[in-house]
Amino acid sequence: MTEQYLEDFAVGQIFNTGRIRVDKDQIFAFARQFDPQPYHLDEQAARESPFRGLAASGWHTAAVTMRLLVDGEFSPAGGILGVGFDAMSWPRPVRPGDELYAKSEVLEVRPSKTRPDRGLIKVRTTTFNQNDEPVQIFTGNLLVPRRPAGAPNR
Amino acid sequence: MTEQYLEDFAVGQIFNTGRIRVDKDQIFAFARQFDPQPYHLDEQAARESPFRGLAASGWHTAAVTMRLLVDGEFSPAGGILGVGFDAMSWPRPVRPGDELYAKSEVLEVRPSKTRPDRGLIKVRTTTFNQNDEPVQIFTGNLLVPRRPAGAPNR
Repeated sequence: MTEQYLEDFAVGQIFNTGRIRVDKDQIFAFARQFDPQPYHLDEQAARESPFRGLAASGWHTAAVTMRLLVDGEFSPAGGILGVGFDAMSWPRPVRPGDELYAKSEVLEVRPSKTRPDRGLIKVRTTTFNQNDEPVQIFTGNLLVPRRPAGAPNR
Repeated sequence: MTEQYLEDFAVGQIFNTGRIRVDKDQIFAFARQFDPQPYHLDEQAARESPFRGLAASGWHTAAVTMRLLVDGEFSPAGGILGVGFDAMSWPRPVRPGDELYAKSEVLEVRPSKTRPDRGLIKVRTTTFNQNDEPVQIFTGNLLVPRRPAGAPNR
């Protein structure tokens, strides 16, 4: 995969990913370490919660999405380097056995005002389950280097 | 810890957490699973990256912050149930050996317009390192139940 510099990004581009299945054991393992709340750890308690069944921690969905991105088509030179988000939401729970994939759309491309060697892109990444229902949407701001003199064109 | 209902929250309240140390092995383990990029996995590559040294994945910092919250003073009845964020940023990297803690401030409290049994609170959570420097700031919207008839007062 060729690395992408600021000059390679344009508003409207779409980048796809592969798929990752999220199993019950992985939901439990993540929740035990980082988010030990009943609806991520206990099926009976989860049924009586607003989730109405076992659900992955939203942070687990976020982490799996990061892995999808790192392994996917979106590959800015120097890495996927988020400086922050404008918005993030989890419109529906991730269930045991769900198979997730993501799509990233470039919303903005702008050179840095102070650093001539870099810029920022704004990207909306939507994570879907196997029924093509969105489970996470976030709009992130990423640092991307400009193409140095002599770097190969894409 | 008494559980907190919507009626127990007020703008300006602050909730504290304990501390969690983030070791190099934990940074590597999280990155290998969810964010296998050189600046989270390789000290030499990290020195030459914009991080100028090994740094935890931002999603690792987010996950550790969730654990701090679950174990801390902030304990809405029914759990810490985020529906999304307005903003999230990582103003500086988390380094191996950093000891993190968080502070959450209530920014807004509002009953649901459609569901009489619940409401939303907006909370800004800042995660600090051992030098009291912010490493993550996010403003989240959380679902909180209203106090049912007969539930004990706080």
